[in-house]
Amino acid sequence: MSLIESKWKSCILDEIRSGEAMRPSEIHKSLPEAAPRVLDIQLKEMVEDGLVSKTIYPELPPRSEYKITELGVSLLPIIDSMLRWGEEHIEIFERKYGKK
Amino acid sequence: MSLIESKWKSCILDEIRSGEAMRPSEIHKSLPEAAPRVLDIQLKEMVEDGLVSKTIYPELPPRSEYKITELGVSLLPIIDSMLRWGEEHIEIFERKYGKK
Repeated sequence: MSLIESKWKSCILDEIRSGEAMRPSEIHKSLPEAAPRVLDIQLKEMVEDGLVSKTIYPELPPRSEYKITELGVSLLPIIDSMLRWGEEHIEIFERKYGKK
Repeated sequence: MSLIESKWKSCILDEIRSGEAMRPSEIHKSLPEAAPRVLDIQLKEMVEDGLVSKTIYPELPPRSEYKITELGVSLLPIIDSMLRWGEEHIEIFERKYGKK
């Protein structure tokens, strides 16, 4: 459960869900509200947990790409229901905490 | 999504899911691996978020009880699928990080 306890982890999985490899800079761009450094830390942890794979290409300059793993894909239905729950109840929280 | 980002929050909701009111000491006993102080902080946040309601009875000594709210109940299916996912994949993580 703690695997996706950071809100950005589920957003990252949602971004790379198509299965296409993404470069770090593309992931940064797709989640502009998150600090790139924060995303990089999350990605590193997700690689360690086996949710995401990282491939480093020995080019100059070196290029790296992230891709969702089978384990990561198996988490997508849960992430989807969390996102759906969030959308369904957003009004309650906007009323309470103000719009973000 | 961040509402249940702490692992104990989902455990607490799971414990009070029946809808019966529980006293803090009962919740502490049902989750002995968590420090009571940590659980109390989580409960306080969950009351603020509307997932749990707290009733204080003006007795001597004062007695308080926690109960799951409708909003909390609506999160249970997601928590269940998270717990199920965790059980289905527990071997991978035990292999990786050792048994806990």
